[in-house]
Amino acid sequence: MQKPSLPKGTRDFGTVQMARRNYILDTIKGTFQLFGYNQIETPAMENLSTLTGKYGDEGDQLLFKILNSGDYLKNVGEEDLQNGYKQTLTKVSEKGLRYDLTVPFARFVVMNRNDLTFPFKRFQIQPVWRADRPQKGRYREFYQCDADVVGTDSLLCEAEIILMIRSVFEKLKLTDYSIKLNNRKILTGISEAIGEAGNEGPLCVAIDKLDKIGWEKVKEELSERGFASDSLEKLAPLVKLETDQAGKLAFLKKFLATSEIGLQGVSELEEVFQILTSMGENLDFVDMDIMLARGLSYYTGAIFEVKVNHVSIGSVSGGGRYDNLTGVFGLSGMSGVGFSFGVDRLYDVLEELGLFPEDSVQSTKVLLTHFDQKGFAYGLGLLKKFRAAGIKAELYPDLTKMKKQLEFASKKIIPFVGICGDSEIEANVIALKNLETGAQESVSLEEAVERLK
Amino acid sequence: MQKPSLPKGTRDFGTVQMARRNYILDTIKGTFQLFGYNQIETPAMENLSTLTGKYGDEGDQLLFKILNSGDYLKNVGEEDLQNGYKQTLTKVSEKGLRYDLTVPFARFVVMNRNDLTFPFKRFQIQPVWRADRPQKGRYREFYQCDADVVGTDSLLCEAEIILMIRSVFEKLKLTDYSIKLNNRKILTGISEAIGEAGNEGPLCVAIDKLDKIGWEKVKEELSERGFASDSLEKLAPLVKLETDQAGKLAFLKKFLATSEIGLQGVSELEEVFQILTSMGENLDFVDMDIMLARGLSYYTGAIFEVKVNHVSIGSVSGGGRYDNLTGVFGLSGMSGVGFSFGVDRLYDVLEELGLFPEDSVQSTKVLLTHFDQKGFAYGLGLLKKFRAAGIKAELYPDLTKMKKQLEFASKKIIPFVGICGDSEIEANVIALKNLETGAQESVSLEEAVERLK
Repeated sequence: MQKPSLPKGTRDFGTVQMARRNYILDTIKGTFQLFGYNQIETPAMENLSTLTGKYGDEGDQLLFKILNSGDYLKNVGEEDLQNGYKQTLTKVSEKGLRYDLTVPFARFVVMNRNDLTFPFKRFQIQPVWRADRPQKGRYREFYQCDADVVGTDSLLCEAEIILMIRSVFEKLKLTDYSIKLNNRKILTGISEAIGEAGNEGPLCVAIDKLDKIGWEKVKEELSERGFASDSLEKLAPLVKLETDQAGKLAFLKKFLATSEIGLQGVSELEEVFQILTSMGENLDFVDMDIMLARGLSYYTGAIFEVKVNHVSIGSVSGGGRYDNLTGVFGLSGMSGVGFSFGVDRLYDVLEELGLFPEDSVQSTKVLLTHFDQKGFAYGLGLLKKFRAAGIKAELYPDLTKMKKQLEFASKKIIPFVGICGDSEIEANVIALKNLETGAQESVSLEEAVERLK
Repeated sequence: MQKPSLPKGTRDFGTVQMARRNYILDTIKGTFQLFGYNQIETPAMENLSTLTGKYGDEGDQLLFKILNSGDYLKNVGEEDLQNGYKQTLTKVSEKGLRYDLTVPFARFVVMNRNDLTFPFKRFQIQPVWRADRPQKGRYREFYQCDADVVGTDSLLCEAEIILMIRSVFEKLKLTDYSIKLNNRKILTGISEAIGEAGNEGPLCVAIDKLDKIGWEKVKEELSERGFASDSLEKLAPLVKLETDQAGKLAFLKKFLATSEIGLQGVSELEEVFQILTSMGENLDFVDMDIMLARGLSYYTGAIFEVKVNHVSIGSVSGGGRYDNLTGVFGLSGMSGVGFSFGVDRLYDVLEELGLFPEDSVQSTKVLLTHFDQKGFAYGLGLLKKFRAAGIKAELYPDLTKMKKQLEFASKKIIPFVGICGDSEIEANVIALKNLETGAQESVSLEEAVERLK
């Protein structure tokens, strides 16, 4: 006999959590579909050759690896063992658990390139696994929820991503948030304009931390990374720029006058704004943020990030455009743009703000209760009719005290109880009790169905 | 540059497959909820101590094991290596991928016993992993779809499982199938009655194969397992029994007259039939099959199995009652009953019978197309209104030939195209073309919305 436990960093989702997660996921799914995105799924296990080298050295170490079946040591020699475990890894494990949904998606596109209809819009909602040190809010198994379109560089896609985020947030009753938008080309242009052409990599990494550590520290970091003090002086006015969207665009056009790619970034941003305007949207909710960088190096165009204001959790969604997602698997020229909702974070935000609707639990609507075998049999006859009307109904399965049956209903958050006692049986009715208000009345089955619908 | 591939025995689900799988799963989910079952999820990874020893030696070998992170060899000594890989397994791997949904559910119930409301009805739809040799129709990653109720021995649960199966099949338009029903206690009684008390284990294993290998071979197997020829002679009339349900019940009552447990099994079956009758159901679809055994040894009461007739795949669902699911984790006396739908098999059956509804693809309803920038801009203005009306709508994102846009719609199985040409723009209409019939007419946006709803 053993006391069971869960692996570190993993969770069960009980019925209430599941219902709430489904409320979020169904909302997101519905929106994705409204915009023409279709769902796919990929296997949890991928060949390690598909996964390694895609997430940097740190990422490689965080991959969960599957031990080969049978005698996993059969290809491991004395020498391998003496050289340490790293030498043996590829010999004892060929597969790993997926680390994100992006690399499997790229693999999927390459393997199915001849069958897919491009532009291909897909969404994918599946768990990913990372052997990270578990801590509050960080798990070793968690869901990602990605939407990407590949095979087009139309900026309509960027505009629609912004609209999908708005649509999801509206349905979730989230009103106080901002969608930060920038373009990687602008960051490249800035590095050119300040005399640090080709250094947009470290520039992005550093200014990505601007929110957290402030300009002075970012300046220090850039200095250490070899940025000239002259360059940093040129950068300062941008960092401190406080003006509206039109002001920012005007400033950038001057600032980036000598950088072709920088101006292209500005023009792409303008086109996204213009598309949104043509679609009848106002732009109040879009926060053009020249300092938004996002760490991931594969973005080449638009980048965005969504923050809910006044909650302890910050970013709940983000993404961007990439020019060469599938290049690593041998298919180049496949431009795309995608984004991701952080489901765990959205869950925490909705909980913090008390925004889960009461009926998100999707519980049974009515529990039929009874005092004896006769009432139980009467309840049996009613069950089918409730369910035929689409009403989630249960009959308490055991003969037991009414008090216990009512407690069951209350714990399971069942809003109504239908009592089947002798007098109800005689009059061919049920005593319908609203557990929230305590109100109780005898009604016919038809009336009960009407009320519970 | 590498050519990507999938691990053996795993699959991607593309958009059409996913939509069809969702059609099946949504149908099942809706039914489970109608009957008061709530969803839970457990992690893909479980501690190996939770998994091993639960599925027999063969099962243990089919577990996918996760390599410990970092220097996985650090606890492995010279001696371990000399003793072979089996000695080292527990030192290099602490976690495995779940093999089914039953053991994780038992663990969940034990760990959450103080927070759950019993009788606890849960369903769970998640992938499981088995390092089986891949072959046609057998995968290393596949979905299971389980519903169980624990904490009651009411036979209402058995009756409701039969009703849930019926309800799902009705919604899926599956009409030609049978639900085989038996009770493990009857099998125990039979082994007593034929003079082989205590040997119901091998008896079940052998007669489980009756369908496949026939009575002669089953008899041989039982003989080899030490059953007396006298016992087998007594068994023969049962195997060959051909009569209706009432006849079978009458026969069994005589046959099992000396076996208390056997008679209890018969009486449980009768009670299930009686509950179904009280619920207004006819019993035509229930096939009482005294020879149904099912291999799994943990069943102690009702057992059932569902076969679709006239298709190449047989059993698509099965389950039964167990008295001690959670005993292995230290919680005894938790009776329950559960069953499982084989999602992959249901998929294949529906495909074979051509029963997937055309709209199961859940595709975009209308694609707006254009000849030039002006038409594109006009389309932009329409998009929001279609979507506001809940109509899945897309605008082709690139300026390209109409032919290419129509091909895109046709490949993506989009039923309608809304053409935005100069004359449409001038008249403030769209040319709505039904891609199936080829019919085309100019309609106002409001009319288009009305038609597409």
